Amino acid sequence: MADHAQTVRDYWAAAERRAWDDFAETLSPEVVYDVPQTHERVVGRDRYLAFNRDYPGDWHVTLVRVVADEEAAFSWGRVALGTDVQVGLTVFTFDEVGAIATIDDFWPQPSEPLGGREHLVERF
Amino acid sequence: MADHAQTVRDYWAAAERRAWDDFAETLSPEVVYDVPQTHERVVGRDRYLAFNRDYPGDWHVTLVRVVADEEAAFSWGRVALGTDVQVGLTVFTFDEVGAIATIDDFWPQPSEPLGGREHLVERF
Repeated sequence: MADHAQTVRDYWAAAERRAWDDFAETLSPEVVYDVPQTHERVVGRDRYLAFNRDYPGDWHVTLVRVVADEEAAFSWGRVALGTDVQVGLTVFTFDEVGAIATIDDFWPQPSEPLGGREHLVERF
Repeated sequence: MADHAQTVRDYWAAAERRAWDDFAETLSPEVVYDVPQTHERVVGRDRYLAFNRDYPGDWHVTLVRVVADEEAAFSWGRVALGTDVQVGLTVFTFDEVGAIATIDDFWPQPSEPLGGREHLVERF
């Protein structure tokens, strides 16, 4: 069995280093990258490499957690750009040789609590 | 090793059935539930049961994917309330007997694409 957790760690480490050849090695040639919140899709390794190479800003990623099993993997990261820190949640599936076949990338934003549950809830 | 994927499926199935005794069986007495986007925290099984029991609306959850390993689990669900469908992404850790010890719940909302990458991106 391919070590999907390690592949996901390699993917993020290569992105952090802007080591695009190493990044490409984690990807299937037919990789499909989706952003479900915006309904954006990037198809194919070459386009997805360009998408990442061209992505603006001196951002830095720190992994909070990686979960992986035989079928899929999940990562929770913090992406810092200056003082702004975004949460990135990413779901991966893999092809038959263990390369990343699909990526679903989520960027949940801060929001206000619903009312009516203050008696049960603390803030952190 | 506890079957963390099954525990997560049991958690969601019990929530969908409003079977709160079954739901409670998946939880550690000391469970901590966090919503990082709102910085809300609910501490302890009794409060977390009340939080869920009191949650308004005839919502229904469908699991898209569960990923689990020895340390943690992740679920991607769609929660429908009438015609509104929310994406729920949840990260779980477990105690020494396999009950859910921590829950981090994310609700990413639809958003607009960043500009400048239309040459690489399709919409779906």
